[in-house]
Amino acid sequence: MKVEINQNERLDDLQLNGLRIIQKVDGFCYGIDAVLLANFASVKRGGRAVDLGTGTGIIPLIMSQKTEAGKLIGIEIQPEMAEMANRSVQYNGLEERIQILNQDVRLAVDILGLATFDTVVTNPPYIKYGGGLLNPSDTKAISRHEILCKLEDIIKASSQLLRPNGAFFMIHRPDRLVDILCLMRQWNIEPKLLRMVHPYAEKEPNLILVHGHKFGNVQLKVMKPLTVYNSKGEYTDEVLNIYGRYEVKEG
Amino acid sequence: MKVEINQNERLDDLQLNGLRIIQKVDGFCYGIDAVLLANFASVKRGGRAVDLGTGTGIIPLIMSQKTEAGKLIGIEIQPEMAEMANRSVQYNGLEERIQILNQDVRLAVDILGLATFDTVVTNPPYIKYGGGLLNPSDTKAISRHEILCKLEDIIKASSQLLRPNGAFFMIHRPDRLVDILCLMRQWNIEPKLLRMVHPYAEKEPNLILVHGHKFGNVQLKVMKPLTVYNSKGEYTDEVLNIYGRYEVKEG
Repeated sequence: MKVEINQNERLDDLQLNGLRIIQKVDGFCYGIDAVLLANFASVKRGGRAVDLGTGTGIIPLIMSQKTEAGKLIGIEIQPEMAEMANRSVQYNGLEERIQILNQDVRLAVDILGLATFDTVVTNPPYIKYGGGLLNPSDTKAISRHEILCKLEDIIKASSQLLRPNGAFFMIHRPDRLVDILCLMRQWNIEPKLLRMVHPYAEKEPNLILVHGHKFGNVQLKVMKPLTVYNSKGEYTDEVLNIYGRYEVKEG
Repeated sequence: MKVEINQNERLDDLQLNGLRIIQKVDGFCYGIDAVLLANFASVKRGGRAVDLGTGTGIIPLIMSQKTEAGKLIGIEIQPEMAEMANRSVQYNGLEERIQILNQDVRLAVDILGLATFDTVVTNPPYIKYGGGLLNPSDTKAISRHEILCKLEDIIKASSQLLRPNGAFFMIHRPDRLVDILCLMRQWNIEPKLLRMVHPYAEKEPNLILVHGHKFGNVQLKVMKPLTVYNSKGEYTDEVLNIYGRYEVKEG
Protein backbone atom coordinates (compact mmCIF):
# COMPACT_ATOMS: atom_id res chain seq x y z
CA MET A 1 0.00 0.00 0.00
CA LYS A 2 1.20 3.48 -0.85
CA VAL A 3 1.29 5.58 2.33
CA GLU A 4 1.53 9.35 2.10
CA ILE A 5 4.05 11.25 4.22
CA ASN A 6 3.04 14.89 4.53
CA GLN A 7 5.38 17.83 4.25
CA ASN A 8 5.43 18.64 7.98
CA GLU A 9 6.11 15.02 8.88
CA ARG A 10 9.17 12.83 9.10
CA LEU A 11 9.58 9.07 8.88
CA ASP A 12 11.72 7.77 11.76
CA ASP A 13 13.44 4.38 11.85
CA LEU A 14 12.65 2.51 15.09
CA GLN A 15 15.72 0.26 14.59
CA LEU A 16 13.45 -2.64 15.43
CA ASN A 17 12.87 -5.21 12.67
CA GLY A 18 12.71 -2.42 10.10
CA LEU A 19 9.78 -0.61 11.71
CA ARG A 20 9.22 3.03 10.89
CA ILE A 21 7.00 5.65 12.52
CA ILE A 22 5.53 8.87 11.16
CA GLN A 23 5.92 11.88 13.46
CA LYS A 24 5.31 15.59 13.05
CA VAL A 25 8.43 17.66 12.54
CA ASP A 26 7.21 20.21 15.09
CA GLY A 27 4.72 18.10 17.04
CA PHE A 28 4.75 15.80 20.06
CA CYS A 29 7.33 13.05 19.48
CA TYR A 30 7.59 9.92 21.56
CA GLY A 31 10.16 9.81 24.32
CA ILE A 32 12.01 7.33 26.49
CA ASP A 33 8.88 6.90 28.63
CA ALA A 34 6.96 5.23 25.78
CA VAL A 35 9.91 2.93 25.08
CA LEU A 36 10.33 1.97 28.74
CA LEU A 37 6.60 1.27 29.07
CA ALA A 38 6.41 -0.81 25.87
CA ASN A 39 9.28 -2.94 27.20
CA PHE A 40 7.86 -3.18 30.74
CA ALA A 41 4.47 -4.39 29.46
CA SER A 42 3.61 -7.96 28.57
CA VAL A 43 0.72 -9.67 26.79
CA LYS A 44 0.02 -13.37 26.73
CA ARG A 45 0.53 -15.18 23.43
CA GLY A 46 -2.35 -14.37 21.10
CA GLY A 47 -3.81 -12.02 23.72
CA ARG A 48 -5.59 -8.71 23.24
CA ALA A 49 -3.95 -5.46 24.40
CA VAL A 50 -5.14 -1.88 24.28
CA ASP A 51 -3.07 1.31 24.58
CA LEU A 52 -5.08 4.20 26.06
CA GLY A 53 -3.91 7.48 24.53
CA THR A 54 -1.65 5.96 21.90
CA GLY A 55 -0.54 9.21 20.24
CA THR A 56 1.63 8.32 17.26
CA GLY A 57 1.07 4.60 17.94
CA ILE A 58 4.60 4.05 19.23
CA ILE A 59 3.58 1.61 21.97
CA PRO A 60 1.54 -0.83 19.82
CA LEU A 61 4.27 -0.63 17.16
CA ILE A 62 7.01 -1.67 19.61
CA MET A 63 4.75 -4.25 21.29
CA SER A 64 3.95 -5.83 17.92
CA GLN A 65 7.61 -6.85 17.78
CA LYS A 66 8.37 -7.38 21.46
CA THR A 67 5.30 -9.48 22.36
CA GLU A 68 3.21 -12.23 20.79
CA ALA A 69 -0.02 -10.24 21.22
CA GLY A 70 -2.69 -11.29 18.76
CA LYS A 71 -4.36 -7.89 18.62
CA LEU A 72 -3.12 -4.45 19.67
CA ILE A 73 -5.59 -1.58 19.75
CA GLY A 74 -4.53 2.03 20.15
CA ILE A 75 -7.10 4.61 21.26
CA GLU A 76 -6.37 8.26 20.48
CA ILE A 77 -8.78 11.18 20.88
CA GLN A 78 -6.93 13.63 18.61
CA PRO A 79 -8.03 12.98 14.98
CA GLU A 80 -4.78 14.21 13.44
CA MET A 81 -2.66 11.98 15.71
CA ALA A 82 -4.91 8.95 15.18
CA GLU A 83 -4.79 9.42 11.41
CA MET A 84 -0.99 9.64 11.49
CA ALA A 85 -0.75 6.54 13.71
CA ASN A 86 -3.01 4.72 11.24
CA ARG A 87 -0.68 5.60 8.38
CA SER A 88 2.30 4.28 10.41
CA VAL A 89 0.46 0.98 10.92
CA GLN A 90 -0.24 0.78 7.18
CA TYR A 91 3.32 1.77 6.29
CA ASN A 92 4.60 -1.18 8.33
CA GLY A 93 1.95 -3.54 6.97
CA LEU A 94 0.64 -4.27 10.48
CA GLU A 95 -3.09 -3.72 9.86
CA GLU A 96 -3.85 -7.33 10.82
CA ARG A 97 -2.43 -6.92 14.32
CA ILE A 98 -2.74 -3.21 15.13
CA GLN A 99 -5.90 -1.13 14.97
CA ILE A 100 -6.00 2.59 15.78
CA LEU A 101 -9.31 4.05 16.92
CA ASN A 102 -9.97 7.78 16.98
CA GLN A 103 -11.97 7.71 20.15
CA ASP A 104 -12.36 9.15 23.63
CA VAL A 105 -10.84 6.83 26.27
CA ARG A 106 -13.86 7.55 28.44
CA LEU A 107 -16.09 5.91 25.82
CA ALA A 108 -13.75 3.01 25.04
CA VAL A 109 -15.72 0.42 26.98
CA ASP A 110 -18.91 1.28 25.06
CA ILE A 111 -17.17 0.47 21.79
CA LEU A 112 -14.82 -2.33 22.83
CA GLY A 113 -16.93 -4.04 25.49
CA LEU A 114 -16.51 -4.83 29.19
CA ALA A 115 -13.69 -7.20 30.21
CA THR A 116 -12.44 -7.80 26.68
CA PHE A 117 -8.66 -7.25 27.12
CA ASP A 118 -5.79 -9.23 28.63
CA THR A 119 -3.55 -6.16 28.87
CA VAL A 120 -4.02 -2.39 29.13
CA VAL A 121 -1.02 -0.10 28.68
CA THR A 122 -1.07 3.66 29.09
CA ASN A 123 1.33 6.59 28.98
CA PRO A 124 -1.20 9.29 29.84
CA PRO A 125 -0.85 13.06 30.03
CA TYR A 126 1.29 13.68 33.11
CA ILE A 127 0.37 17.16 34.17
CA LYS A 128 -2.64 17.78 36.36
CA TYR A 129 -4.96 20.28 34.74
CA GLY A 130 -5.15 23.29 36.99
CA GLY A 131 -7.29 25.72 35.10
CA GLY A 132 -7.84 27.56 31.84
CA LEU A 133 -4.30 28.50 30.91
CA LEU A 134 -3.90 26.06 28.04
CA ASN A 135 -5.15 26.19 24.49
CA PRO A 136 -7.24 23.05 23.97
CA SER A 137 -6.48 23.03 20.26
CA ASP A 138 -2.77 22.64 21.05
CA THR A 139 -1.97 18.98 20.36
CA LYS A 140 1.24 19.03 22.41
CA ALA A 141 -0.69 20.42 25.37
CA ILE A 142 -3.35 17.70 25.03
CA SER A 143 -0.68 15.02 25.00
CA ARG A 144 0.98 16.40 28.11
CA HIS A 145 -1.83 17.86 30.26
CA GLU A 146 -4.99 16.29 31.68
CA ILE A 147 -7.23 18.43 29.51
CA LEU A 148 -9.40 15.83 27.82
CA CYS A 149 -8.72 12.89 30.08
CA LYS A 150 -7.99 12.73 33.80
CA LEU A 151 -6.02 10.05 35.62
CA GLU A 152 -9.20 8.60 37.10
CA ASP A 153 -10.82 8.38 33.63
CA ILE A 154 -7.86 6.31 32.44
CA ILE A 155 -7.83 3.97 35.43
CA LYS A 156 -11.61 3.55 35.37
CA ALA A 157 -11.53 2.74 31.63
CA SER A 158 -8.64 0.30 32.20
CA SER A 159 -10.56 -1.50 34.91
CA GLN A 160 -13.62 -1.79 32.70
CA LEU A 161 -11.66 -3.09 29.73
CA LEU A 162 -9.60 -5.68 31.63
CA ARG A 163 -10.60 -9.28 32.07
CA PRO A 164 -10.33 -10.72 35.60
CA ASN A 165 -6.61 -11.05 36.37
CA GLY A 166 -5.84 -8.93 33.29
CA ALA A 167 -2.62 -6.91 33.40
CA PHE A 168 -2.35 -3.12 33.65
CA PHE A 169 0.87 -1.20 32.85
CA MET A 170 1.36 2.54 33.25
CA ILE A 171 4.21 5.03 33.21
CA HIS A 172 3.76 8.33 35.02
CA ARG A 173 5.50 10.86 37.24
CA PRO A 174 6.43 10.15 40.87
CA ASP A 175 4.39 13.08 42.18
CA ARG A 176 1.21 11.22 41.18
CA LEU A 177 2.16 7.97 42.92
CA VAL A 178 -0.41 8.27 45.73
CA ASP A 179 -3.18 9.15 43.28
CA ILE A 180 -2.23 6.24 41.02
CA LEU A 181 -2.01 3.58 43.72
CA CYS A 182 -5.19 4.67 45.48
CA LEU A 183 -7.20 4.97 42.25
CA MET A 184 -5.96 1.56 41.08
CA ARG A 185 -7.10 -0.05 44.32
CA GLN A 186 -10.40 1.85 44.19
CA TRP A 187 -11.01 0.50 40.66
CA ASN A 188 -9.99 -3.07 41.58
CA ILE A 189 -6.62 -3.06 39.84
CA GLU A 190 -4.31 -4.18 42.63
CA PRO A 191 -0.75 -2.79 42.29
CA LYS A 192 1.75 -5.65 41.98
CA LEU A 193 5.01 -4.09 40.73
CA LEU A 194 6.48 -0.62 41.09
CA ARG A 195 9.72 0.51 39.50
CA MET A 196 11.29 3.91 39.93
CA VAL A 197 13.15 5.36 36.95
CA HIS A 198 16.07 7.62 37.89
CA PRO A 199 17.98 9.80 35.41
CA TYR A 200 21.13 9.10 37.46
CA ALA A 201 21.65 6.59 40.31
CA GLU A 202 21.99 9.28 42.96
CA LYS A 203 19.12 11.44 41.74
CA GLU A 204 15.42 11.50 42.53
CA PRO A 205 13.26 9.39 40.22
CA ASN A 206 11.52 11.29 37.42
CA LEU A 207 9.30 8.46 36.16
CA ILE A 208 7.51 5.49 37.69
CA LEU A 209 6.47 2.22 36.06
CA VAL A 210 3.44 0.58 37.68
CA HIS A 211 1.93 -2.84 37.00
CA GLY A 212 -1.30 -4.19 38.47
CA HIS A 213 -3.75 -7.08 38.14
CA LYS A 214 -7.52 -6.72 37.86
CA PHE A 215 -8.96 -8.29 41.04
CA GLY A 216 -5.40 -9.25 42.08
CA ASN A 217 -4.34 -10.18 45.62
CA VAL A 218 -2.62 -7.58 47.78
CA GLN A 219 1.11 -8.12 47.13
CA LEU A 220 3.30 -5.24 45.99
CA LYS A 221 6.91 -5.72 45.00
CA VAL A 222 9.11 -2.65 44.60
CA MET A 223 11.77 -3.50 42.03
CA LYS A 224 15.37 -2.33 41.91
CA PRO A 225 15.74 1.15 40.42
CA LEU A 226 16.01 1.64 36.66
CA THR A 227 18.81 4.11 36.02
CA VAL A 228 18.95 5.82 32.63
CA TYR A 229 22.43 7.35 32.54
CA ASN A 230 25.70 6.32 34.16
CA SER A 231 27.96 8.89 35.81
CA LYS A 232 29.55 9.68 32.41
CA GLY A 233 26.16 10.65 30.99
CA GLU A 234 25.96 7.55 28.76
CA TYR A 235 23.01 5.18 28.71
CA THR A 236 23.34 2.37 31.26
CA ASP A 237 23.62 -1.20 30.01
CA GLU A 238 20.02 -1.89 30.98
CA VAL A 239 18.72 1.03 28.92
CA LEU A 240 20.99 0.16 26.00
CA ASN A 241 19.62 -3.34 26.21
CA ILE A 242 16.02 -2.08 26.23
CA TYR A 243 16.33 0.31 23.35
CA GLY A 244 19.88 0.24 22.15
CA ARG A 245 18.52 -0.55 18.74
CA TYR A 246 15.98 2.26 18.64
CA GLU A 247 16.85 5.78 17.81
CA VAL A 248 14.90 7.67 20.41
CA LYS A 249 14.20 11.36 20.22
CA GLU A 250 13.63 12.64 23.72
CA GLY A 251 11.21 15.37 24.68
CA MET B 1 18.82 8.32 90.67
CA LYS B 2 20.01 4.74 91.04
CA VAL B 3 18.67 2.67 88.12
CA GLU B 4 18.69 -1.12 88.28
CA ILE B 5 20.05 -3.14 85.38
CA ASN B 6 18.75 -6.70 85.56
CA GLN B 7 20.79 -9.80 84.95
CA ASN B 8 19.33 -10.58 81.51
CA GLU B 9 19.86 -6.99 80.35
CA ARG B 10 22.73 -5.04 78.92
CA LEU B 11 23.46 -1.32 78.90
CA ASP B 12 24.41 -0.16 75.38
CA ASP B 13 26.18 3.11 74.57
CA LEU B 14 24.33 5.07 71.86
CA GLN B 15 27.51 7.08 71.12
CA LEU B 16 25.31 10.16 71.17
CA ASN B 17 26.04 12.71 73.87
CA GLY B 18 26.71 9.91 76.36
CA LEU B 19 23.24 8.35 76.06
CA ARG B 20 22.78 4.74 77.07
CA ILE B 21 19.92 2.32 76.49
CA ILE B 22 18.87 -0.80 78.38
CA GLN B 23 18.12 -3.78 76.13
CA LYS B 24 17.44 -7.44 76.83
CA VAL B 25 20.36 -9.74 76.11
CA ASP B 26 18.07 -12.18 74.28
CA GLY B 27 15.16 -9.85 73.43
CA PHE B 28 14.18 -7.53 70.59
CA CYS B 29 16.98 -4.98 70.06
CA TYR B 30 16.64 -1.85 68.00
CA GLY B 31 17.90 -1.89 64.43
CA ILE B 32 18.92 0.48 61.69
CA ASP B 33 15.24 1.15 60.91
CA ALA B 34 14.73 2.92 64.27
CA VAL B 35 17.87 4.99 63.74
CA LEU B 36 16.89 5.98 60.17
CA LEU B 37 13.40 6.95 61.31
CA ALA B 38 14.64 8.98 64.30
CA ASN B 39 16.89 10.92 61.92
CA PHE B 40 14.22 11.32 59.22
CA ALA B 41 11.70 12.74 61.70
CA SER B 42 11.53 16.36 62.81
CA VAL B 43 9.70 18.25 65.55
CA LYS B 44 9.36 21.98 65.82
CA ARG B 45 11.24 23.70 68.64
CA GLY B 46 9.44 23.08 71.91
CA GLY B 47 6.91 20.88 70.10
CA ARG B 48 5.23 17.71 71.29
CA ALA B 49 6.04 14.38 69.64
CA VAL B 50 4.73 10.88 70.27
CA ASP B 51 6.28 7.55 69.23
CA LEU B 52 3.66 4.83 68.72
CA GLY B 53 5.08 1.44 69.71
CA THR B 54 8.28 2.78 71.22
CA GLY B 55 9.73 -0.58 72.37
CA THR B 56 12.96 0.11 74.27
CA GLY B 57 12.43 3.86 73.77
CA ILE B 58 15.21 4.17 71.21
CA ILE B 59 13.38 6.73 69.05
CA PRO B 60 12.52 9.27 71.79
CA LEU B 61 16.05 8.83 73.17
CA ILE B 62 17.67 9.71 69.83
CA MET B 63 15.14 12.47 69.11
CA SER B 64 15.84 14.05 72.51
CA GLN B 65 19.34 14.81 71.20
CA LYS B 66 18.62 15.33 67.49
CA THR B 67 15.61 17.66 67.83
CA GLU B 68 14.51 20.54 70.04
CA ALA B 69 11.24 18.80 70.94
CA GLY B 70 9.82 20.00 74.25
CA LYS B 71 8.08 16.74 75.08
CA LEU B 72 8.57 13.23 73.67
CA ILE B 73 6.06 10.56 74.62
CA GLY B 74 6.61 6.88 73.87
CA ILE B 75 3.65 4.51 73.91
CA GLU B 76 4.35 0.81 74.41
CA ILE B 77 1.78 -1.93 75.03
CA GLN B 78 4.18 -4.53 76.44
CA PRO B 79 4.64 -3.85 80.20
CA GLU B 80 8.12 -5.34 80.37
CA MET B 81 9.35 -3.25 77.41
CA ALA B 82 7.71 -0.07 78.73
CA GLU B 83 9.25 -0.59 82.18
CA MET B 84 12.68 -1.10 80.61
CA ALA B 85 12.27 2.02 78.41
CA ASN B 86 11.30 3.95 81.53
CA ARG B 87 14.48 2.88 83.28
CA SER B 88 16.51 4.00 80.23
CA VAL B 89 14.87 7.43 80.43
CA GLN B 90 15.70 7.63 84.14
CA TYR B 91 19.24 6.38 83.59
CA ASN B 92 19.84 9.26 81.17
CA GLY B 93 18.10 11.79 83.43
CA LEU B 94 15.60 12.66 80.68
CA GLU B 95 12.37 12.37 82.73
CA GLU B 96 11.56 16.03 82.06
CA ARG B 97 11.46 15.58 78.30
CA ILE B 98 10.60 11.90 77.72
CA GLN B 99 7.61 10.05 79.15
CA ILE B 100 6.94 6.36 78.50
CA LEU B 101 3.34 5.17 78.77
CA ASN B 102 2.46 1.49 79.02
CA GLN B 103 -0.62 1.76 76.90
CA ASP B 104 -2.44 0.39 73.87
CA VAL B 105 -1.91 2.64 70.81
CA ARG B 106 -5.59 2.18 69.99
CA LEU B 107 -6.50 3.93 73.26
CA ALA B 108 -3.81 6.64 73.02
CA VAL B 109 -6.19 9.40 71.98
CA ASP B 110 -8.42 8.75 75.00
CA ILE B 111 -5.49 9.38 77.33
CA LEU B 112 -3.54 12.02 75.39
CA GLY B 113 -6.39 13.92 73.75
CA LEU B 114 -7.41 14.72 70.17
CA ALA B 115 -5.03 16.89 68.10
CA THR B 116 -2.46 17.35 70.84
CA PHE B 117 0.78 16.54 68.95
CA ASP B 118 2.98 18.31 66.41
CA THR B 119 4.70 15.09 65.35
CA VAL B 120 3.91 11.38 65.35
CA VAL B 121 6.67 8.86 64.64
CA THR B 122 6.19 5.12 64.34
CA ASN B 123 8.21 2.02 63.54
CA PRO B 124 5.36 -0.47 63.80
CA PRO B 125 5.33 -4.27 63.54
CA TYR B 126 6.05 -4.98 59.86
CA ILE B 127 4.55 -8.38 59.30
CA LYS B 128 0.88 -8.75 58.49
CA TYR B 129 -0.80 -11.09 60.95
CA GLY B 130 -2.10 -14.04 59.01
CA GLY B 131 -3.51 -16.34 61.65
CA GLY B 132 -2.83 -18.21 64.86
CA LEU B 133 0.73 -19.38 64.32
CA LEU B 134 2.40 -17.01 66.76
CA ASN B 135 2.61 -17.08 70.52
CA PRO B 136 1.12 -13.79 71.76
CA SER B 137 3.28 -13.89 74.89
CA ASP B 138 6.40 -13.78 72.70
CA THR B 139 7.66 -10.19 72.97
CA LYS B 140 9.80 -10.45 69.84
CA ALA B 141 6.77 -11.66 67.88
CA ILE B 142 4.66 -8.76 69.19
CA SER B 143 7.33 -6.29 68.11
CA ARG B 144 7.52 -7.77 64.62
CA HIS B 145 3.99 -8.96 63.77
CA GLU B 146 0.66 -7.17 63.69
CA ILE B 147 -0.72 -9.16 66.61
CA LEU B 148 -1.86 -6.42 68.96
CA CYS B 149 -1.90 -3.51 66.56
CA LYS B 150 -2.67 -3.36 62.85
CA LEU B 151 -1.39 -0.79 60.36
CA GLU B 152 -4.77 0.91 60.23
CA ASP B 153 -4.90 1.19 64.06
CA ILE B 154 -1.55 3.02 63.95
CA ILE B 155 -2.52 5.40 61.16
CA LYS B 156 -5.94 6.10 62.68
CA ALA B 157 -4.35 6.84 66.08
CA SER B 158 -1.74 9.07 64.38
CA SER B 159 -4.43 11.05 62.62
CA GLN B 160 -6.37 11.54 65.85
CA LEU B 161 -3.30 12.63 67.79
CA LEU B 162 -1.95 15.09 65.19
CA ARG B 163 -2.77 18.77 65.13
CA PRO B 164 -3.81 20.23 61.75
CA ASN B 165 -0.68 20.29 59.58
CA GLY B 166 1.09 18.07 62.15
CA ALA B 167 3.84 15.84 60.81
CA PHE B 168 3.72 12.05 60.53
CA PHE B 169 6.85 9.89 60.04
CA MET B 170 6.87 6.13 59.52
CA ILE B 171 9.31 3.43 58.49
CA HIS B 172 7.95 0.20 57.06
CA ARG B 173 8.50 -2.42 54.37
CA PRO B 174 7.98 -1.72 50.65
CA ASP B 175 5.37 -4.47 50.28
CA ARG B 176 2.99 -2.40 52.44
CA LEU B 177 3.41 0.80 50.40
CA VAL B 178 -0.06 0.72 48.84
CA ASP B 179 -1.72 0.01 52.19
CA ILE B 180 0.26 2.80 53.86
CA LEU B 181 -0.40 5.49 51.25
CA CYS B 182 -4.11 4.65 50.87
CA LEU B 183 -4.69 4.45 54.65
CA MET B 184 -2.85 7.74 55.19
CA ARG B 185 -5.04 9.47 52.63
CA GLN B 186 -8.16 7.83 54.07
CA TRP B 187 -7.26 9.15 57.54
CA ASN B 188 -6.40 12.66 56.24
CA ILE B 189 -2.62 12.39 56.52
CA GLU B 190 -1.51 13.38 53.02
CA PRO B 191 1.78 11.72 51.97
CA LYS B 192 4.41 14.39 51.24
CA LEU B 193 7.77 12.57 51.12
CA LEU B 194 8.72 9.01 50.27
CA ARG B 195 12.23 7.63 50.48
CA MET B 196 13.24 4.12 49.52
CA VAL B 197 16.03 2.51 51.56
CA HIS B 198 18.18 0.05 49.59
CA PRO B 199 20.73 -2.30 51.15
CA TYR B 200 22.89 -1.80 48.03
CA ALA B 201 22.43 0.69 45.18
CA GLU B 202 21.51 -1.96 42.63
CA LYS B 203 19.17 -3.92 44.92
CA GLU B 204 15.47 -3.70 45.63
CA PRO B 205 14.56 -1.47 48.57
CA ASN B 206 13.91 -3.28 51.86
CA LEU B 207 12.58 -0.31 53.84
CA ILE B 208 10.56 2.81 53.10
CA LEU B 209 10.47 6.11 54.95
CA VAL B 210 7.18 8.00 54.63
CA HIS B 211 6.30 11.51 55.79
CA GLY B 212 2.87 13.09 55.68
CA HIS B 213 0.96 16.14 56.89
CA LYS B 214 -2.40 16.07 58.62
CA PHE B 215 -4.86 17.78 56.25
CA GLY B 216 -1.94 18.51 53.87
CA ASN B 217 -2.27 19.40 50.19
CA VAL B 218 -1.74 16.71 47.56
CA GLN B 219 1.98 16.97 46.69
CA LEU B 220 4.22 13.92 46.92
CA LYS B 221 7.96 14.13 46.42
CA VAL B 222 9.91 10.90 45.98
CA MET B 223 13.42 11.51 47.30
CA LYS B 224 16.67 10.08 46.01
CA PRO B 225 17.34 6.56 47.30
CA LEU B 226 19.02 6.01 50.66
CA THR B 227 21.68 3.33 50.20
CA VAL B 228 23.00 1.57 53.29
CA TYR B 229 26.12 -0.22 52.03
CA ASN B 230 28.57 0.59 49.25
CA SER B 231 29.81 -2.11 46.88
CA LYS B 232 32.52 -3.07 49.41
CA GLY B 233 29.90 -3.81 52.06
CA GLU B 234 30.83 -0.73 54.14
CA TYR B 235 28.32 1.86 55.30
CA THR B 236 27.82 4.66 52.78
CA ASP B 237 28.83 8.18 53.76
CA GLU B 238 25.19 9.14 54.27
CA VAL B 239 24.59 6.30 56.72
CA LEU B 240 27.88 6.95 58.50
CA ASN B 241 26.79 10.54 58.81
CA ILE B 242 23.40 9.55 60.23
CA TYR B 243 24.63 7.10 62.79
CA GLY B 244 28.36 6.84 62.52
CA ARG B 245 28.55 7.71 66.16
CA TYR B 246 26.04 5.08 67.29
CA GLU B 247 26.91 1.49 67.82
CA VAL B 248 23.95 -0.21 66.23
CA LYS B 249 23.13 -3.85 66.73
CA GLU B 250 21.15 -5.00 63.75
CA GLY B 251 18.36 -7.54 63.82
